[in-house]
Formats: sequence, structure tokens, C-alpha cells
Amino acid sequence: MVENGARGYHMHVLRIGIDTHEEAVIYMRADCGVCRAEGFSASARLKVSAHGHALIATLNVVDSALLPEGFVGLSSHAWDKLGLAERDEVVVAWAPVVSSMSDVRRKIYGHRLDEAAIHGIIRDVADGMYSDIQLASFLTASAGDRMDRQEVVALTRAMVDVGERLHWNGNRAIYDKHCIGGLPGNRTTPIVVSICSAAGLVIPKTSSRAITSPAGTADTMAVITRVDLDLPDIRHVVDQVGGCLVWGGAVKLSPVDDVLIRVERALDIDSEGQLIASVLSKKIAAGSSHILIDIPIGPTAKVRDEHAAKDLAELMEYVGRAMGVNVRCVFTDGSQPVGSGIGPALEARDVLAVLRNAPEAPQDLRDKSLELSAQLLDMAHGHGLDAAWEEAKRLLDNGQALAQFERICRLQGGFNEPPASHFQKEVLCKVHGTVSSIDNRKLSRLAKLAGAPQLLEAGVDLKVRCGQRVVPGDCLMVVHSGSSGELEYALGYYQSNPGIIGVDET
Amino acid sequence: MVENGARGYHMHVLRIGIDTHEEAVIYMRADCGVCRAEGFSASARLKVSAHGHALIATLNVVDSALLPEGFVGLSSHAWDKLGLAERDEVVVAWAPVVSSMSDVRRKIYGHRLDEAAIHGIIRDVADGMYSDIQLASFLTASAGDRMDRQEVVALTRAMVDVGERLHWNGNRAIYDKHCIGGLPGNRTTPIVVSICSAAGLVIPKTSSRAITSPAGTADTMAVITRVDLDLPDIRHVVDQVGGCLVWGGAVKLSPVDDVLIRVERALDIDSEGQLIASVLSKKIAAGSSHILIDIPIGPTAKVRDEHAAKDLAELMEYVGRAMGVNVRCVFTDGSQPVGSGIGPALEARDVLAVLRNAPEAPQDLRDKSLELSAQLLDMAHGHGLDAAWEEAKRLLDNGQALAQFERICRLQGGFNEPPASHFQKEVLCKVHGTVSSIDNRKLSRLAKLAGAPQLLEAGVDLKVRCGQRVVPGDCLMVVHSGSSGELEYALGYYQSNPGIIGVDET
Repeated sequence: MVENGARGYHMHVLRIGIDTHEEAVIYMRADCGVCRAEGFSASARLKVSAHGHALIATLNVVDSALLPEGFVGLSSHAWDKLGLAERDEVVVAWAPVVSSMSDVRRKIYGHRLDEAAIHGIIRDVADGMYSDIQLASFLTASAGDRMDRQEVVALTRAMVDVGERLHWNGNRAIYDKHCIGGLPGNRTTPIVVSICSAAGLVIPKTSSRAITSPAGTADTMAVITRVDLDLPDIRHVVDQVGGCLVWGGAVKLSPVDDVLIRVERALDIDSEGQLIASVLSKKIAAGSSHILIDIPIGPTAKVRDEHAAKDLAELMEYVGRAMGVNVRCVFTDGSQPVGSGIGPALEARDVLAVLRNAPEAPQDLRDKSLELSAQLLDMAHGHGLDAAWEEAKRLLDNGQALAQFERICRLQGGFNEPPASHFQKEVLCKVHGTVSSIDNRKLSRLAKLAGAPQLLEAGVDLKVRCGQRVVPGDCLMVVHSGSSGELEYALGYYQSNPGIIGVDET
Repeated sequence: MVENGARGYHMHVLRIGIDTHEEAVIYMRADCGVCRAEGFSASARLKVSAHGHALIATLNVVDSALLPEGFVGLSSHAWDKLGLAERDEVVVAWAPVVSSMSDVRRKIYGHRLDEAAIHGIIRDVADGMYSDIQLASFLTASAGDRMDRQEVVALTRAMVDVGERLHWNGNRAIYDKHCIGGLPGNRTTPIVVSICSAAGLVIPKTSSRAITSPAGTADTMAVITRVDLDLPDIRHVVDQVGGCLVWGGAVKLSPVDDVLIRVERALDIDSEGQLIASVLSKKIAAGSSHILIDIPIGPTAKVRDEHAAKDLAELMEYVGRAMGVNVRCVFTDGSQPVGSGIGPALEARDVLAVLRNAPEAPQDLRDKSLELSAQLLDMAHGHGLDAAWEEAKRLLDNGQALAQFERICRLQGGFNEPPASHFQKEVLCKVHGTVSSIDNRKLSRLAKLAGAPQLLEAGVDLKVRCGQRVVPGDCLMVVHSGSSGELEYALGYYQSNPGIIGVDET
């Protein structure tokens, strides 16, 4: 230990083997000279540097039994982020004042933030300066309609600027699609990418993990193939086949987005400004020039009516123009889930069924995938939606889309059939009647309580559609889980929320 | 380990010796049967029960070296809260859904919350159901002017309801005072309580720790005597001498307030609605019937102009009436600190100097303490402010207030003179001129960077007042600290913020 209060103390690090998820924690002995000299106490924020990198960690103070004298411990995530090896030297110092937090406080008190302020916040978030408490405050302060359109543009630009940005060979148009979510199932992306890249479009798709849903496209694709490709590997796949289906987080495109999503998930919030910045920053960083946004509308979808959808589309297109990209929004039916499966593996199964033209393939998932593919092909060729739809249908029916999907998966690292769950329970109908409504939000919550998306095979397999006639004993859904505990937990939620599937009795 | 997914798993606990401050953390082995069966992963929220108590803890997953098979660890705060002993049995289960978070989300999106919703949130916070992330979101969502007056009343009532409530013998009026803060130094409370209780008023004062300031009254009193008295001990002190000067948190009056303050401190926010609920819930729970609120006004005080002060006073008095107590607000000069010391021990020194009528006693602290005492004596007797002021002055000048203060301290547990700091540095004036302004906020920040309030003797000793003539070499302030690192850190902040003490050069 070299005493140097201003520039930090040199100490040696041990892998303490504590996984705190993504929050960086440093463990120091209560009796260590540095803690005592500097007055460090539990929950202090400290700067830890090694190998030319630095991060801010929260201090946990441990008694002597856990750490030998002269050593500090680091949580697994921080350990990996600094690229440490056992007994490496780290430098520990007070964390600098996070000056951008004064702008977060200004936002809390209702002031608007200019481009420089927003850039400062996002820069500090990217540098790991924010604690989870501070991230939660920033997200809450800018949730709802608390950001104006200039702030959303600034947030989008800042999120692009702090990450890597892809530039593709040649001056070709780069296509992308995104669903703003809220609809369980609805896994059109792998099908659309397969059809459009089979049609010759360049569509290098990077997807997010789930925010508040039971599965994101990246979660679903991770069931079938590798999704954590780095930039050179992504380029290789796209150069070969014109498309890919990877997780955006692994390539540091808009890296702040993943940090924010982790806290948004814990809070179960997902606000309009953050949503637009999250979506467009990822797309723009990925080098997209033409972006199709699918906005499902329904009473329990994320967007509840056409008025809200128009506002969102208008803001989305505004930010797109400000950022120099072509954004087209389409409104789709969000009154009930799309497809049968809800959860990574169950959705992967549906995707494969559609691509394989299997008789059990959900018709609604097929129809919607064709519709979205047609929109993208129309953006590309401009020959009208009817011609575009015919082309999409041809590529799906003749197996070219399936072949394309398999090529993409093999290039990304392999092809696995989706696994089955170990615990299942059928939920049966008790009355005669007609299914009148399906609550997307509560169904999502049910699938999450069953273990999705962390457990790939967990979720819900929906067996009915709105308008369908049912009789006692009909299976409404099958809940899939990885443990009896989670299964009971999910079924308990179903029992106390009987309106998840509404049936008009006859 | 008894397998029981629904009702929880019985496991044995070891004191792992990790101090995470107040966030409850449970440590489980990655390879433990429960983690694997239930799919628990890092950052999961789990319910931990023992001895008829329960709390919600965040899961950290550890490798096998830290914990023997079959055991779980708990952070020190959680360990103490559950009253555990080595190898006690605890029951671990998924945390129930925190249903009140849906109301927090409604608040995030700008909806107003009714009494039941606010009560549900505060009940869950009191029960330890909220993670730090969720607390930060609730505080941010209800900060600024985002709560209307009915919500503030509901919040105040909920905060009273979830804690203990004092009832004093007889039907006597119970007096209290509170400064809404923002002014460094300004430690009038111990002096006012001494004067007023010497005059026969019952003034059982419970104080908070600092929120965003370098010291609260509880921090300052902790320098001199014990402040963490329980209810029977407080009753004993007040029955003997009519007054006390204790920390409110130890008696579970409005226990949620301390939880919220911890997160507010990390965010450095302190909003109007939370402020009023925090102050009045503590006073009402303490059984107060007559409450004097000191609102300092100044460009760098918490309240910046008379308009804001009137709004705050009006809302404070409104909430008081709704809760059935008599609230009087007085506006005082908030243009510069009161007293010389800023930080727990330095403020304690000033308090003692005033009570002892010492020649070096800060005149402004004496004057303000007399003014506030007069307001309280006038609320009690109604003979006008002039008569009340004369009485207060007599009790201070003739030593009865000092004798009363010493009685209170001895009954609370002893009397210690304030300690001196180990590291000090004078900040000298470099120019000829007149002190024109003192930035309360930056001065507070400086005192905090020096280590206050965690380190009792740290802080700033201010040597000048606005209007004072200064020449090069005059001492503007002395910075006190507990380590060379913190001292350098604080002085670095001073160097880069030269306007902390403004001097008009002549």
C-alpha cells in the first residue's frame, strides 16, 4: 500500500467471487489503513483503476475473515470489466464528484436540459460513474412526457456518440425494423430479416434483451444460435448473407442503452423519450438508413389508442429526420398476442414453424411477418405494397426465407432446436362461452413469473384467440417453468387475476 | 434444507461480515440446490424470514469458497434487523410482488395518488419491500412540485401511521421547532430547547440526521451526548426536565423518513412535499401540538425568496391544520451561515459558547436562538413577542438555559466536550476588500467533502461575515478534516470554486 490520498492508494486485488449482477462493488477490510485514513465507510463511492481503465464502485466493508490484510476484493462484473488477474495492483481513490448529477437534479425539478447537459449525463453513465440509485433517478426524472423533442434528439445523439458506430462497405441503403413492444409473442423479426435479406436487402439486425417483456428478439435468437457476436464477426455474417440476428449489447452499439435497460427492468418502466432514444440510437449506431417501426395498438398493448400511436410515430419520425435517417411507422393490431408462445424458447418454436411452413404455424405470426416484410421491400423498391407483399410471400412459401435463416444461424455460430421445459401445467376453461379479451400485460407478467426471460424455456403457450368458442375443459394456455416453485408462483398470480383471458359466458 | 418452493426453503445462516450500509443483501452459493431449483440469480429479490420477522433482500451469488454448503449469508444490517445468531434457521422464498410499485409507476407518469395508494407505498417501504432503485424512483417521481397538497397530507399521515406515536401524560401542550435547513451552522435548536424548557414548556425534541447538509441537530448533539434513546428513556428525560435533544430514528417515529433520507442523501435531493411530510410526520408522531418552523431566506439558502417561503409556509400550515396541529412559520435571514462552525463538532462548540455566554460566542447564533425562543414562548403564553423575548434573554443570561442543557445531556447519557480535528488548513484572503457574499450551498459541499457529517470533527470554521473588511493574509476559514486525503479533496474543491466567499475588491 502506497499512501497517496490525492491520487489514490495502490492495493492488491483478490477475486472475492461475489456476483452482484452489474453493479460494481469493492470490498475492503474495516481495519485497513486506507479505510481508516480516508474515512471510507460502507456505501462510499470509490474510483478503482487498473490497466489503464477505471470504474466507480460502491464500497462494502468486510470483517477480516473474508480478505487478507492489504487486499481488496471486487465483484465479478467489476473484475471482468477491469480485466483483472489475481493479485493485480489496483489504485483506489475517492470517486470524483459526478458533476452531471446536478443536471439530473435540474431535470427532477422540471427544467429542460440542453444538448451539452444530456451529453454529460450519458458520458458519465457510459463511464460507469452512476450508481443504481442515480440511474433510477435519471430514468424516473425523464420518464413520462418529461422530455421535449429536442431533449429526445439530444439523448439519441448522445447515446450514439458514446458507443461504437458501424459503417458498412459501399454506399448501400441499410434496412432495419423494430417493434415498440407491449405485445407478448410477436416474434416477427427473425422471419422479416430472413425474407428481406433473401430479397437482397442489407438488414444487419441488432436486437435488445427484454426490458419489461418476457422475451426480446435477442433472448429468442439466443435459444437457437449465438447472438453475442463482436463487430468483425457481424461484418462477416452480413457480408456473406446480407443479414444477421444478433444482440446489440455485445457490440457496444449504444452501450448506455443496456445500462439503462437493466434499471428500467427493475423499475418496470419504459418511457416514450427513453424508448425512442433507445431504439433509434441502436439503429443509427448500427449504420441503418431505413428503419421500419411496428407500433401495435390495443387496450393492453404499450400503445393503447391511435391517438397515442400517432404522437409516438410523429416524434419517432421527427427524431429520425433530425438524425438524418428515413423512419416509417406502421400501426398494427395489438389487441392480443401474436403467435402462441410467450417466452424465449416458445417463441423460437413459433418462428421456426412459420419459416418451415409447418401446419401448426401460427397464422397471425405469418400474416404479420409478411405485412412488415412488404413494408420494408416497399421502402426499398417503391413498387407499391401489393407487389412487395407478393414477393415476400413467394420467398416464405418457396423456402428461401428458411434457407436464409439457417444460413444466418450457421454463420453466427450454430443451430439448436428450442429446448422443452421441465415443469408444465395446463390452465383449463371452466365455462361455455367466447373468448372476448386477452390482457397482454398480465399475460406478460405471468410469463415472467414463470421464469422468462432468464429461463429460456419458461413462459406461456397460449391456446386460444379472441373470438374463439370455448367449453369447460378446453385448454386456455400451458404454463412452462423451470421449477415447481416458479410454476406455483405463476399459477398463484393467474388464480388471483382471473381476467387474464376474458370469456363472455353463453 | 427443506424443499418447499411455495412457502420457502429452510436454510441456516452465517454472519458473512459484509457491511452494505442499509441495503439488505443475502449471499447464496451459486451451486446451492435452492438457487438451482428456483432459478435465483444475482439481483433477484428474496424474502428472508426468521423469528417472526421478514425482510426483502437482494441476492448476491457467491462462489463456494465464501460459504459452506447449506448456508446462506446476510449483510450486517439485515442480520441485525432480523436479530440473528450464528447458524439460526431462516426461510428464503421469492419476494412477493411489490404491488404498490404500480402506484409509483402511475406517479412517474404524472397521475395523482389517493390516500390508499400513498399509504400502500409507505407501508411497503416501512416493511423493507423496496430496493434502493425503487426508493430512488419513488423519491424522484414525487420530487419538485409533483405532489399536490392532498398528496402531501396523505404522505404525512402515512408516515405517522407506520411508526410509533408518542402520547404524553396529561393534556399538556407539546412544543417543537424545526428549521427547514439550507443554512450551514445555524444550530439554534439545542439553545432554544434549553431556554424554552427552562421556561416550563414541554419540548421533547427529536431531530434528524443531515439530509444534504454537513450536519443535522442529531449529528451535532451526538458529539456531546447520547442521542439514540429509546421511548422509555426519552419519557424519563422529558418527565424530569421538560425537554430532550434526541435522534428521531432510534425511536421509530416515522421510521420511513430515515429510509427515504438515506436515498435522498445519495441523490442530493430534498423536495418540498417530502420535506413537509418528513418534518411534520416526525413532529406529529412525537406528539407535538405546537410547532414552530424556521424558514431561512437567501439567494443560496434552501428557500431563495420570500415568494417561495410564503408558498412553503402556506402548504406547511395547511398540512398542519389537516393533521390537527398548530404550525407557525417564521422567516429568517438566510443570506449567510449562522455561527462560525459548520460540521457536527464545530457547531457543538458554538452552541456551548452561546449557552456559556462566552466572549467568543457567535452573536448571530445567540440572537437567532433568542428570536426563535421568543416565538415559541409567545405561542405558549400569548403575551406578545417583546415580553417573550425578554424572558428568553433572562434565562440565557442568568445561566438557567445552560444548566438546563447540562441536565438534559446528563439524563441522556453524559456530557462530552467536542473533539478537535487532526488535519486543519487555513484559507487566506488574497485581496483588499469587503466580503460581499457567502455561498451556503458550496460552503456546505466543502464541509461535506472535508468529511462531515460522517466524521464528527470535520467541517469548516468560518472566520468572516458579509460586510466585513478584509486584507491579504486575513483568515477566511479553517477547513477541518480527518485525513490528508479528504483535506486535499476539500481544498481542491475550494480552488476550483473561488466564489464560495465573494469579496468586492477596493
